[in-house]
Amino acid sequence: MDLVVVGSVAYDSVETKWGKRDNALGGAATFFSVAASHFTRPGLVGVVGDDFRQEDVALMERCGVDLAGLERTAGRTFRWGGVYHDDMNGRDTIFTELNVFEAFEPKLPSAYQNAQFLFLGNIHPSLQSAVLEQVENPRFVGLDTMNLWIDISRNELVNVLERVDALFVNDEEARQLTGKYNLRDAAAAIREMGPSIAVIKRGEYGAIVFSEDDIFIMPAFLLERVVDPTGAGDTFAGGFMGHLAKTQDLTPSNLRRAAVVGSVMASFCVEGFSLDTLEGVSMDDVTRRYREFIELTSFEGLGLGE
Amino acid sequence: MDLVVVGSVAYDSVETKWGKRDNALGGAATFFSVAASHFTRPGLVGVVGDDFRQEDVALMERCGVDLAGLERTAGRTFRWGGVYHDDMNGRDTIFTELNVFEAFEPKLPSAYQNAQFLFLGNIHPSLQSAVLEQVENPRFVGLDTMNLWIDISRNELVNVLERVDALFVNDEEARQLTGKYNLRDAAAAIREMGPSIAVIKRGEYGAIVFSEDDIFIMPAFLLERVVDPTGAGDTFAGGFMGHLAKTQDLTPSNLRRAAVVGSVMASFCVEGFSLDTLEGVSMDDVTRRYREFIELTSFEGLGLGE
Repeated sequence: MDLVVVGSVAYDSVETKWGKRDNALGGAATFFSVAASHFTRPGLVGVVGDDFRQEDVALMERCGVDLAGLERTAGRTFRWGGVYHDDMNGRDTIFTELNVFEAFEPKLPSAYQNAQFLFLGNIHPSLQSAVLEQVENPRFVGLDTMNLWIDISRNELVNVLERVDALFVNDEEARQLTGKYNLRDAAAAIREMGPSIAVIKRGEYGAIVFSEDDIFIMPAFLLERVVDPTGAGDTFAGGFMGHLAKTQDLTPSNLRRAAVVGSVMASFCVEGFSLDTLEGVSMDDVTRRYREFIELTSFEGLGLGE
Repeated sequence: MDLVVVGSVAYDSVETKWGKRDNALGGAATFFSVAASHFTRPGLVGVVGDDFRQEDVALMERCGVDLAGLERTAGRTFRWGGVYHDDMNGRDTIFTELNVFEAFEPKLPSAYQNAQFLFLGNIHPSLQSAVLEQVENPRFVGLDTMNLWIDISRNELVNVLERVDALFVNDEEARQLTGKYNLRDAAAAIREMGPSIAVIKRGEYGAIVFSEDDIFIMPAFLLERVVDPTGAGDTFAGGFMGHLAKTQDLTPSNLRRAAVVGSVMASFCVEGFSLDTLEGVSMDDVTRRYREFIELTSFEGLGLGE
């Protein structure tokens, strides 16, 4: 298996100014793997309850996600409910039901244990460690986390970060983790904690990729309509890691392409609720939007020898 | 005169986490003209009191700003005082003293009346109109405004906008002016009001330039240290318009370059208080940072025919 992701598979109840969806397929591992499935066949490690719908299994399988690592157990699937503010930047969580996720002990199928690319989605850092220990000799490990774990499980997080290649966080999380406000300083502090790559996600403002000798700053797409931002960060990471797994190229210039690919996938994700748009995207759609992104952002030299 | 700017010349008292300055040279027309002076010889229309220091006249003259349009009158120079929040994004205004600005009636020297490029800095829209009427047949008119004028002088603002080529506003102002949240929609609404170009400034997140058949999205520099953001927007506009006046080229690709030049100039501006850094910048510094910006933001195609 080239690429394995561990994280939540969930039913989300989401309200935005464009509408409302109850119990729609969601979860970090779901968005990540469906995004990555455009580039490779990703394996998903997660857990769902006995209420998980067959049509949702079918959707992921149709996309080419390997579900050998998706455990089904008695109980209800993880559920999250939230309402987005009109500006789509803020949101209020209405409820979080861990359900079957509470007792989750990830076990990797043997076919996943030689994964080259591994993504540790936003779950408790101890679970992230437990998954990492089951993979023999991964070439590249990405990790996502959140303010909650930085607050309450800092030691476990710092411990797993030592063994990770790329940390994916938003600017607030980067600042909270490092105590540095300036993003250059925060990225330097992250890189001292272990990851050689810090990917700072800035939502509607794009992303910054810090690596050994390179900094790449990119804006985000300017969409006609953002319907539902849920899953955008996981979709970005899925496109990013999927592109790396497909190309097997970790050079700085390919990390830049990976970030643009991630942004392209996220731009599709937020145009609909749940996986509505992401599911139907073709490789032609991806390359077309990648090209649009070049057109939106490129500019010429000053013609003064620069 | 290729380029004329009207706006405030001020003494600013500014406090940021990096220090405090009282009665430092500032004002929209000052930042704009010093930035533009790297590309052309700009003429400044404004007013100062009899307390205006000779050393500040000397600074602007040394930069190559034409001061024939700077009126000196009895009274005190316009003063503004503010304190920036630690994140440098928000600020609290401590005081605003209009002083000699209150009775300002801009009169253009005859040498300014054939200006090709005109920038109407952020002053009352009626004053902007009065200046515009004194210029015979400008080729390109830029205008800046703010929430206050959108609130209390909307009709006058709409009136002057009909005769303007480019509106420079931040995202909040664009939304307030048009009632549209999405920036594509806001820009379309602005372009229906008169200006063929809408330049949306996003502070630390860059800028977007909307023109006839073109959208250009750019991030901003990631600086080691932002010392004082005062004047960044005016400096951006000064670099933008200065580059246009120098190159006499209004094609979309040159508007893109102008935006990057503006961002380069603004990046120097915020690295020091007042005009401390902007004043000493050389054309070599400008081209070097322009080249850095290319390095920070460029990426390659996917190699899939895109």
